[in-house]
Amino acid sequence: MRDSNRGFDGKRVLADLNALRAIGAYKTGVHKPTFSEPHIRSLDWLARRLPDAGLTATIDGIGNVVGKSAKAGPKLLAGSHLESQNHAGWLDGPLGVIYALEAARVINSDPDVTGAVEVAAWCDEEGHFGHFLGSRSFAGAVTEAEIDAASDRSSDRPLRQALRDAGLAGRARLQAEPRRHIGYLEAHIEQGETLESSGLKIGVVTSIVGIWQYRITFTGVQNHAGTTRMAVRRDAGLALARFCVAIDDSFPALCGPRTVWTTGRITLDPGAPSIIPGRAEMLFQIRDDDPDVIERLEAHLRNMAADVTAQARCSVDVERIRTGVPAIMNAAFQDAIEAAGAVLAGGKSIRMPSGAGHDAQVLATIMPAAMLFVPSIGGISHHWSENTDDADILTGAAVFVDTCRRLLAG
Amino acid sequence: MRDSNRGFDGKRVLADLNALRAIGAYKTGVHKPTFSEPHIRSLDWLARRLPDAGLTATIDGIGNVVGKSAKAGPKLLAGSHLESQNHAGWLDGPLGVIYALEAARVINSDPDVTGAVEVAAWCDEEGHFGHFLGSRSFAGAVTEAEIDAASDRSSDRPLRQALRDAGLAGRARLQAEPRRHIGYLEAHIEQGETLESSGLKIGVVTSIVGIWQYRITFTGVQNHAGTTRMAVRRDAGLALARFCVAIDDSFPALCGPRTVWTTGRITLDPGAPSIIPGRAEMLFQIRDDDPDVIERLEAHLRNMAADVTAQARCSVDVERIRTGVPAIMNAAFQDAIEAAGAVLAGGKSIRMPSGAGHDAQVLATIMPAAMLFVPSIGGISHHWSENTDDADILTGAAVFVDTCRRLLAG
Repeated sequence: MRDSNRGFDGKRVLADLNALRAIGAYKTGVHKPTFSEPHIRSLDWLARRLPDAGLTATIDGIGNVVGKSAKAGPKLLAGSHLESQNHAGWLDGPLGVIYALEAARVINSDPDVTGAVEVAAWCDEEGHFGHFLGSRSFAGAVTEAEIDAASDRSSDRPLRQALRDAGLAGRARLQAEPRRHIGYLEAHIEQGETLESSGLKIGVVTSIVGIWQYRITFTGVQNHAGTTRMAVRRDAGLALARFCVAIDDSFPALCGPRTVWTTGRITLDPGAPSIIPGRAEMLFQIRDDDPDVIERLEAHLRNMAADVTAQARCSVDVERIRTGVPAIMNAAFQDAIEAAGAVLAGGKSIRMPSGAGHDAQVLATIMPAAMLFVPSIGGISHHWSENTDDADILTGAAVFVDTCRRLLAG
Repeated sequence: MRDSNRGFDGKRVLADLNALRAIGAYKTGVHKPTFSEPHIRSLDWLARRLPDAGLTATIDGIGNVVGKSAKAGPKLLAGSHLESQNHAGWLDGPLGVIYALEAARVINSDPDVTGAVEVAAWCDEEGHFGHFLGSRSFAGAVTEAEIDAASDRSSDRPLRQALRDAGLAGRARLQAEPRRHIGYLEAHIEQGETLESSGLKIGVVTSIVGIWQYRITFTGVQNHAGTTRMAVRRDAGLALARFCVAIDDSFPALCGPRTVWTTGRITLDPGAPSIIPGRAEMLFQIRDDDPDVIERLEAHLRNMAADVTAQARCSVDVERIRTGVPAIMNAAFQDAIEAAGAVLAGGKSIRMPSGAGHDAQVLATIMPAAMLFVPSIGGISHHWSENTDDADILTGAAVFVDTCRRLLAG
């Protein structure tokens, strides 16, 4: 290992990641929804380790863990998140937090480096209660009214209740201090197959796609599944199924080369086997890094809905509930990652967009931001079998620490 | 009113129906799921009224309320159910119970009638925990193992727990005594538009259709909704939507004149907006009074599933979870209803099959059974706005009481 990575300890990185994996373990992954008991224990675990990196830890009023340094010189903010999707992988989030912790441990105690790495674990990146709640709160974009209205998408527990249960009610929410940080760096597993299938080790993220999300509601007439003849039914569930198929049949002719769309949840109301659903709802998502493509697809979606409504059997309402703006990663930061990769990953890096959303896209609205990816085995993500080779985890960590050094050196 | 309906009290019938509607009221209907607090209160309400009809009341170990008479002579069993679907109508169930109560009040105290009407409210006809649990228990067709395994489809509360919460755990389950009853009579709202649209007042039910129910499970690969390209996805939810549409497109060419089919519930797993569902499930139901038609449709369903599985993107598993045998109503009982209708409903009756399932189909397996329908306004059913004109309720009640008299007279 070259001199610039003096103090880097790969065993410590793997031990920390496995310690977090043991909190809320599920098969080879974890089940650590936001403000679940294992999630809160993970926040405490991190807060107790930050002093090892010369950082003063705070868990704030939205569940962010932030470690601040008193060292003189420039400050680089680095981190990711600690909660998981339900029954999901062990690295999605913790990898970036532990890379940041390791960088802080190595750099903050090094008298030859001017400046420090500060560590953050942003709460609820996975969107159990909202989307990017923690990082948006830090960026000043979350109101008290939004917190009042939010609840857990799986259990309906109100966010206020969850904050009380976690002992965080009434705490202040930390906000970014103007000009404190030269920028933000985040590492993450790729969650796709690009790196693995090309034998590459580092993805230098160029942009993060925007996510547009819709609640599409179908209204028909609820009735008895035995006594209502097929000819007179207004079955909202069937209208929904036809709509899903129509989307999938028509989007390919209109989308861009990397557009993806997903129906992640369907609810029929009342959802009983002997009742024709009078109401049905789907959560639908489109991702792209080109707003023009999204605009075209959304217009098509609304036309399709109007057509179905005009046929008068069921009405369709398309409501946009999330508007994603693609985020461009800082060019100088991208160069620093690539330079570190040239030395510590044999140059096996590639510039690529991120199809997944990350806190870095929120931080990018208030400071220079960048991301690096490490390979995902089989591209599996948001599933407990998600994994990355230990060797790739360590290569990524070394590149991350070196990138931090380069960024602080200006 | 003719002499044979001496003692019939229409005001009392409407007052009783409205008393039950006030327990668990929801808008103009009720929300009274099986073993909810208002359902249990309704069982107690009935048990307290049965002595007015000369009956000894028992609430048994599955939640059936049965009133027995010590009067000499033949016994006719009559009833329906007291729980409702979620947020559903006030008459679906209670109408038949109150008709039976009124018949028992009128007839059991009449020294000129030999024999008595005995009253039953069968538990869980609406299938919150199973299907026809109460009447099947009475017919000897429910095992303790089935009770062990059952749970509320909305809340997952185990049936054993619900029975404990209701104070019914450990009570014996009543079973039909051989040769005690000459038969079973049940009244119900039509839940369709046949009577209303023809200006008729009484439906004489000829048969009750069979219900075949299926759990159809789609297995694909769960993955990240942002990083997984459309071309490599194995989206179980999309496969389900395409299957629903394919059913609706192909069944009309294969079905009988009165076949109906319904997808009442869809579940995507894990059901999060940013995850491609790896598993999806639908509850699917077919109803017909011709088993040959069902057999043809089920074979088609299984062929469709095999075709999808052969295309190797998602696999489909079709599991039949309920097998309905159509029930034929007793011919002499049908004649008695028609004769009563000729006198008390101006002959405005029609013979018709029932597209809905009823406890009468279970009782039909152990004794002669029959049903009469009254009109439903707009055919609306399984919805809180379900209703029937008071005048039609009273006509139906008078015909019901007179039918009981005729049946006891042999």
